[in-house]
Amino acid sequence: MDGSARPSTEGGVDVLVALLDQLRHGRAVTRPDLVQRTGIGRGVVSKGVAELIGRGLVEEHGTGKSSGGRAPRLLRLRAEAGHLLAVDVGVTSVAVAIADLAGRVVAHTEEPADLAAGPEAVLDRADALYRELAGSQHAEHGDLWGIGIGVPGVVDFRAGRCTAPPVPSWESFSVRDRLAERQGVPVWVDNEVNVMALGELRAGVARDHRCVVYAKLGTWIGGAVIVDGRLHRGAEGSAAELGHVRISDDPNVVCRCGRIGCLAALAGGSWLARNGERLAREGMSSMLADVLARAGRVEATDVSWAASHGDHVSRALIVENGRHVGHALAVVVNIVNPSLIVIGGGVSQAGDDLLAAIRESIYARSMPVATRNLVIQRTTVAGLGGVIGAAAMAADEIFARRRVAEWLDAGTPAGRPELASLAA
Amino acid sequence: MDGSARPSTEGGVDVLVALLDQLRHGRAVTRPDLVQRTGIGRGVVSKGVAELIGRGLVEEHGTGKSSGGRAPRLLRLRAEAGHLLAVDVGVTSVAVAIADLAGRVVAHTEEPADLAAGPEAVLDRADALYRELAGSQHAEHGDLWGIGIGVPGVVDFRAGRCTAPPVPSWESFSVRDRLAERQGVPVWVDNEVNVMALGELRAGVARDHRCVVYAKLGTWIGGAVIVDGRLHRGAEGSAAELGHVRISDDPNVVCRCGRIGCLAALAGGSWLARNGERLAREGMSSMLADVLARAGRVEATDVSWAASHGDHVSRALIVENGRHVGHALAVVVNIVNPSLIVIGGGVSQAGDDLLAAIRESIYARSMPVATRNLVIQRTTVAGLGGVIGAAAMAADEIFARRRVAEWLDAGTPAGRPELASLAA
Repeated sequence: MDGSARPSTEGGVDVLVALLDQLRHGRAVTRPDLVQRTGIGRGVVSKGVAELIGRGLVEEHGTGKSSGGRAPRLLRLRAEAGHLLAVDVGVTSVAVAIADLAGRVVAHTEEPADLAAGPEAVLDRADALYRELAGSQHAEHGDLWGIGIGVPGVVDFRAGRCTAPPVPSWESFSVRDRLAERQGVPVWVDNEVNVMALGELRAGVARDHRCVVYAKLGTWIGGAVIVDGRLHRGAEGSAAELGHVRISDDPNVVCRCGRIGCLAALAGGSWLARNGERLAREGMSSMLADVLARAGRVEATDVSWAASHGDHVSRALIVENGRHVGHALAVVVNIVNPSLIVIGGGVSQAGDDLLAAIRESIYARSMPVATRNLVIQRTTVAGLGGVIGAAAMAADEIFARRRVAEWLDAGTPAGRPELASLAA
Repeated sequence: MDGSARPSTEGGVDVLVALLDQLRHGRAVTRPDLVQRTGIGRGVVSKGVAELIGRGLVEEHGTGKSSGGRAPRLLRLRAEAGHLLAVDVGVTSVAVAIADLAGRVVAHTEEPADLAAGPEAVLDRADALYRELAGSQHAEHGDLWGIGIGVPGVVDFRAGRCTAPPVPSWESFSVRDRLAERQGVPVWVDNEVNVMALGELRAGVARDHRCVVYAKLGTWIGGAVIVDGRLHRGAEGSAAELGHVRISDDPNVVCRCGRIGCLAALAGGSWLARNGERLAREGMSSMLADVLARAGRVEATDVSWAASHGDHVSRALIVENGRHVGHALAVVVNIVNPSLIVIGGGVSQAGDDLLAAIRESIYARSMPVATRNLVIQRTTVAGLGGVIGAAAMAADEIFARRRVAEWLDAGTPAGRPELASLAA
């Protein structure tokens, strides 16, 4: 060992990142665990743990089981040393959560919102909801360390900016700058469906999978792809545009994007509502006609409700919707070959007919080798997936190699990251 | 530092893997380079380099440029300390190459072969070609360290076995066991197109890209997807099945897989040949009719040749072929959002009309945000891509974390890896 300029980073930042990674996910809880799971030598693990304890990020709490010799001390991330703000902006709602540094949601609230009201109005509401949530909690959350947020449309993740939003007022808007200036902490912004998929990976059905496709069937249709346990965003952040997979050559099927035959023009909540209302008007379904007479319009949830109460016309709509989704997913299966497809979004709750139609359509159109062990399931985190994912994204970024290196270089103890280190 | 059981692996195996990774790709050539590029401390880098020199894997050779103080010694991987065997098995050919430990091809040969002759016959020829190649070289290659091989069809990469080959005689055949038993070294087997894409990533147009789609237009059509600089194989090894992306609902377009509308049934060399011959018989093209009269049949290369010599009918075929390929690639662009699409395989040499048709079709059917910076190019390593990729795969696996950890644990100096450590 020469008289190194960085005595505390022996073995590289990678050691601390590896230790934090094990501890914050609860995979290792003692020094011997850490040695075994990371393959890093005992001495280096001991030094790394000492450094993390010294910086207030890790603490000992009691003694674990002995495996022969002296019982090892239990270690844990001091997840309450700070908190994260997680925001999930949808087309018709905004959800806000407070999470600890391990990314666990500790408080959550949600209200209807209109994306078309523009970014300032929607983010002002998110600020207010965060203040209410933080104020109503008696627990001490520590400082705010960072913010994770999901928004609809294509996002330039590195720039924290909307590049192809579904509503013009969000075009080119820097969600990151807006939130960072207001809160003074680093902010990570991603597409809403990517964030939902991350939630599923961390706390839902995708926990034990490495390669996952997420299909969000809401008013519109979106997708996300997880490769090797990580979100695949693509070169421009527009990967997994499931809604714009072309499944028909019929020139009469025009998508809101201007092209023909997109899945989003042949399935999804808005398609269900439109067709449900048409069939009600045409007198094809007395149940839907009743809804129309009473409420003045038919929504996707009305079609789901009618289908589950024996309305054949509604059931046929749900099945057709599922078949179209399956067409697009079959292509995705041929390209991505996931081990799991998660069906999320409001329309995913439309009953088993939907899932059966999706499955049938995928199996009929995919290579047998690709569907042999393929699991197709409904989301298990449903409404909370977005904020769980946004919190996980912020936690992952805060404990990523680049940021840990910054802390070490700065020589400052762990604490609230400075605004100066915002650049991705 | 406690009296660690592994004094030589301080900072973990990761340090040595990181140093080897820099050195074998020529990214760092001095100790200060290594410190700067890996972020690992000076002392740990010095110890790691000393260990690699001691094991005969790295050597000093001369002195680099000074940046103020004493000029640093130049370091290099002793790539000639051993060699790799790279094999590229196609449907109609077999190519064999000898590469150094850095994965650089130093000798290469190729001959026609028939995949349908079965694995024993084809691999016997590969053995013979390797013996000839090794014997004819005056240079000293050192011991054989490992084998990389690409074969057509779906491969279970971890098992080294064909799971969905285009020819029944290869079904379930363990290419890995066959080669490992004969040569006594570790073997890595992947799909032929994956290996070609890896060649492009290492030595071709994809060098500066992280997210790449490779389309192989040969007799059949195959694909490969590179995500974050690494091959994406999928849960069952069947990712990127470009040939079986459905682009038509016409029930008369039946693919050899039994399903309808697959790209492979509407484009590719075999489609060009079949349609060229039909048009020759129908008297639509005098050029193709001449070919048919002279040779008794029309091949894809004849259609390319006629197209480049002014035959309108052949040109129209090439354009239609390109348009269909573009339809399928547009879907892949929506899902993967690559920064580069590489067009390889024999049919890729069919002239600029083909590339123009592919481009036009992709642009017309993809999201504008996904094609804004998308590059679409022909392969630049062409015939050598397969063996370059197979050699790169073997080199990457030999210097991967798991294997380096094995060397260190065994306490043996670097040298020919033992057969006992074959399991993936």
